[in-house]
Amino acid sequence: MVKERVTVIDIARAAGVSKSTVSLVLQASPLVNEVTRAKVNAVIRELGYVYNRGAANLRQSNAKSKIIGVVVNDLTNSFFAELAVGIDMVVQSAGYVQFLANTGESLDRQREVIASMREHGISGLILSPARGTEASDLKPLVAAGIPVVNVVRQVVGAKVSSLISDNHAGAHAAVTHLAGLGHRRIAFLGGFADTAVFHERFQGYRDALIHAGLDAGEDLVIGSAPSRAGGVAAVERALALPVQPTAALCFNDAVAFGACDGLRAKRLEPGVDFAVVGFDDVIEAKTAVPALTTVSVDPQGMGWRTAQLLLKQINAGKADAEAIVGSVRLVIRQSCGSSADKRERLALI
Amino acid sequence: MVKERVTVIDIARAAGVSKSTVSLVLQASPLVNEVTRAKVNAVIRELGYVYNRGAANLRQSNAKSKIIGVVVNDLTNSFFAELAVGIDMVVQSAGYVQFLANTGESLDRQREVIASMREHGISGLILSPARGTEASDLKPLVAAGIPVVNVVRQVVGAKVSSLISDNHAGAHAAVTHLAGLGHRRIAFLGGFADTAVFHERFQGYRDALIHAGLDAGEDLVIGSAPSRAGGVAAVERALALPVQPTAALCFNDAVAFGACDGLRAKRLEPGVDFAVVGFDDVIEAKTAVPALTTVSVDPQGMGWRTAQLLLKQINAGKADAEAIVGSVRLVIRQSCGSSADKRERLALI
Repeated sequence: MVKERVTVIDIARAAGVSKSTVSLVLQASPLVNEVTRAKVNAVIRELGYVYNRGAANLRQSNAKSKIIGVVVNDLTNSFFAELAVGIDMVVQSAGYVQFLANTGESLDRQREVIASMREHGISGLILSPARGTEASDLKPLVAAGIPVVNVVRQVVGAKVSSLISDNHAGAHAAVTHLAGLGHRRIAFLGGFADTAVFHERFQGYRDALIHAGLDAGEDLVIGSAPSRAGGVAAVERALALPVQPTAALCFNDAVAFGACDGLRAKRLEPGVDFAVVGFDDVIEAKTAVPALTTVSVDPQGMGWRTAQLLLKQINAGKADAEAIVGSVRLVIRQSCGSSADKRERLALI
Repeated sequence: MVKERVTVIDIARAAGVSKSTVSLVLQASPLVNEVTRAKVNAVIRELGYVYNRGAANLRQSNAKSKIIGVVVNDLTNSFFAELAVGIDMVVQSAGYVQFLANTGESLDRQREVIASMREHGISGLILSPARGTEASDLKPLVAAGIPVVNVVRQVVGAKVSSLISDNHAGAHAAVTHLAGLGHRRIAFLGGFADTAVFHERFQGYRDALIHAGLDAGEDLVIGSAPSRAGGVAAVERALALPVQPTAALCFNDAVAFGACDGLRAKRLEPGVDFAVVGFDDVIEAKTAVPALTTVSVDPQGMGWRTAQLLLKQINAGKADAEAIVGSVRLVIRQSCGSSADKRERLALI
């Protein structure tokens, strides 16, 4: 423990401002001009003052902590890292700090981390729910008036805001594009069938196949973990079918990268011998070789919008539920084979 | 806000146990048997009780919060996601919750998130310091008696524990292996030259080149962001050298994957036309095609050991600084070209 606790009065004296100015700076009030704020913050750092948020919260019933809780279901998927970075940009400029926790799809862990975040007085929560999350899991938060935004996955019946992607439209556009390139047997690779996201993407895939008059046999739908390793396994199974598909829409980019790896392991060239389309548009989709054709949900941009939605609710002081479905777009690169000419040109430059 | 606040007495009554048993469960005491703990926890969930940690901390001077703060410098690098997952496994089984924050190499952001974590009474901090972190940045934590473990990167002069990898030995082994395969011009690709990790890996690379009597020209050292995109750019510059290298040790796996992508973009096959070795051994190193030869630091295992080191200090109640250098091993897969035969065999099975 520090022997002598630095007080607000010490800070005020050293910075040459009033005690209430220091308090305003500590509360990130917009009433303090930038120069004063910088001066006070410099003194705070120098003297090593720590604002006792716990005590402050007890003192002032309307005091707000400056934490946004973010709970995701799979941090090893770079989609979620990019989402978190996007969220961080917005909460940071609003004067909040993001505390991130990973559930790894465990409902028990999700319960624990949310409880712990509540104990520490989060101002709001962004949640990509673990598989099997039910509306009752979110009820205590809603009852306590803590703004919650579900992202990526919705929870049926939960009275909280949500921001998801237009999964059906994205999958539909991708499959229609593959059909237009002449593919007759198009697989759907990866993902857990018990998630709403899987269901929406699968329905978009299926509706597009039927619309194009193509084979929509169940053998073409091969689930797997939504990871790179899952993609390797899924494409192997696809290649072992009696009548091989020649193209696949993958559940997400991680599966698509795995599918490309699995194809190479079988001496097939992705984008030439087999068309691969992903879903998400993570950063490396662009630099991968072949560059990944994918349905872009813009993970960082999704993070921004989610954070903005949450901050709006926090500032409004009430949590009116809004359900936003973000638009997506098909980004055509090399892995679907439609721009082989372009790749040729790029390679020759 | 919840209208009527649920108390410990309500919980005790509903669970049919004493008030002190409820308190012990709330403190995750080992004195309560599993059946009772489960019963109490079920009632806690049902009634929506929230333990007011802030109030508890003020009431009991020796009360400990159950948060471990984890601050990393680049969450978009999957190494850090895996490290965090490893840390989480250990802190979780010890009854803690991990709050993760990303600095994106910003010292300002690092200061903010650490201050916020301190305010919320973390039990300890695991920090992969942002570039340019100085011992003085950690001094307030040390003065406050908060256990800190630096991981991945050390901070010179900081009196805190650290767990880093034997970067010199790993780089030395990788380059010696490449030299043994007959490579005469071996590049060092990626990384920021102002970090200790870069310096250690670079020295291992350089010492091995000199030991093998090979060219150690400065032109062979090409820095870049330690990312996939950085790797693409670095290998492009390497291929543009008047006398091209035929192999490269990359700063980390992300750079190595980027180098493989950059080679393919130039119609060169990694592992056949150019040998690539990474550093870290992230999950996808194994499933990538070609599978990545890399210096394994075992990111998840590093997370476990770091968490164990921190918990030991928390439980001991004092923060004696320990500096641990974890051993590494060279994992030979396909990207260095030494097991082309094996790949052939695997492909034919």
